[in-house]
Amino acid sequence: MKRVCGIIGGMGPMATADLFVKIINHTKAAGDAEHMRVLIDSNVNVPDRTKAILHGGASPLTELLHSANGLVLMGADFLIMPCNTAHHFYEELQAGVAVPVLNMISETVRAVWKAGVKKAGLLATDGTLQAGVYDEPFARAGIELIKPSQEGQRAVMDVIFRGVKAGSATFDTLALERELQTMRSRGAETFVLACTELPIAFSRYNLNFPSVDPTDILAHAAVLYGGYELKE
Amino acid sequence: MKRVCGIIGGMGPMATADLFVKIINHTKAAGDAEHMRVLIDSNVNVPDRTKAILHGGASPLTELLHSANGLVLMGADFLIMPCNTAHHFYEELQAGVAVPVLNMISETVRAVWKAGVKKAGLLATDGTLQAGVYDEPFARAGIELIKPSQEGQRAVMDVIFRGVKAGSATFDTLALERELQTMRSRGAETFVLACTELPIAFSRYNLNFPSVDPTDILAHAAVLYGGYELKE
Repeated sequence: MKRVCGIIGGMGPMATADLFVKIINHTKAAGDAEHMRVLIDSNVNVPDRTKAILHGGASPLTELLHSANGLVLMGADFLIMPCNTAHHFYEELQAGVAVPVLNMISETVRAVWKAGVKKAGLLATDGTLQAGVYDEPFARAGIELIKPSQEGQRAVMDVIFRGVKAGSATFDTLALERELQTMRSRGAETFVLACTELPIAFSRYNLNFPSVDPTDILAHAAVLYGGYELKE
Repeated sequence: MKRVCGIIGGMGPMATADLFVKIINHTKAAGDAEHMRVLIDSNVNVPDRTKAILHGGASPLTELLHSANGLVLMGADFLIMPCNTAHHFYEELQAGVAVPVLNMISETVRAVWKAGVKKAGLLATDGTLQAGVYDEPFARAGIELIKPSQEGQRAVMDVIFRGVKAGSATFDTLALERELQTMRSRGAETFVLACTELPIAFSRYNLNFPSVDPTDILAHAAVLYGGYELKE
């Protein structure tokens, strides 16, 4: 059975495009018609997730549900959401929509566990970290999470907001690289790029560290759930 | 006034992603919320446009209208369609939908004319060529079109269907490059990449010839029509 995929996007737009491209590249298809139908709402009106979680900003839930139900109306059989921080609202989102929402966090933790990792570095927004979006799933899998220092975390936020989200083609990543080296020496075997801007940053700014890309894992999961075969 | 953009996509999926990325990159925005809201239907069920025009295949119009009206239902204020060949059905599409559809062909011809080009090479599908999608607009602009030889046209179709649409990371472009050189010697000052897979092919397979990218021109037009500023 073939299913239509809906992407609740816009958080940010480039991360949405990144997920779409990864879905296309992971699908075994000899031509257009063999690809999965994908519907996208790059909804830039979703309020900032970190601000909502940490500073009492407007909840993103209304806009997430608006996009989700619009996509279902257009024919989406299941939904995915390329924003780690927004997964803090996953239960409420799933409760408000009539089709399954694949969970990027669970899929990622399963992939890291399957790879035999014991200690993973977690790179994410302040919102994802402080809401503990990844804490319980990783604890259940018996994987220790290594988080950045306070200063290092500022470097992570910088590359997300002043790098990728600001559309910068180049960015000074020295502070970030020093933090990553420190985290490596603290035992991080790999880095979970737990903000959808980070895989873009690692590729665009040539950060060469072992890493796990939740966007890529979600793309894999979507292709399979959609009833399509993975490309070798 | 800000407008929501709807993309009638899927022809093919990668060309749709390419247009989306170009819209993001062309928008002057310091963060997510300053981007244009974009709705996408990567509708892979649209029948092959070349087959419909040349071989009596199913008309794409029903699916194009289905996507168009779904996007309007979701809130699109205007539409764009990243498929040159599908523009053969532009008038009927525009007649069946309540919002403006920006015309990639007119936008491209205007850009080529503004650049002062007198003779342009036209690279497109058999469908676009034989339907004459670009013929009258270029004739009206006083620009001569140089088309590939029969053999060269097969090389163009190959790089579109067996290269990009088949998802090939590499492709033997020797036959195509020889044709492009011949067309240069016949007077082509630049090449109009009049199939949305061709800008991807030129970039992915490193084809270094002067070219005009209708997808890029359409992205520019969409950013401006959407009420956003172009990034420098």
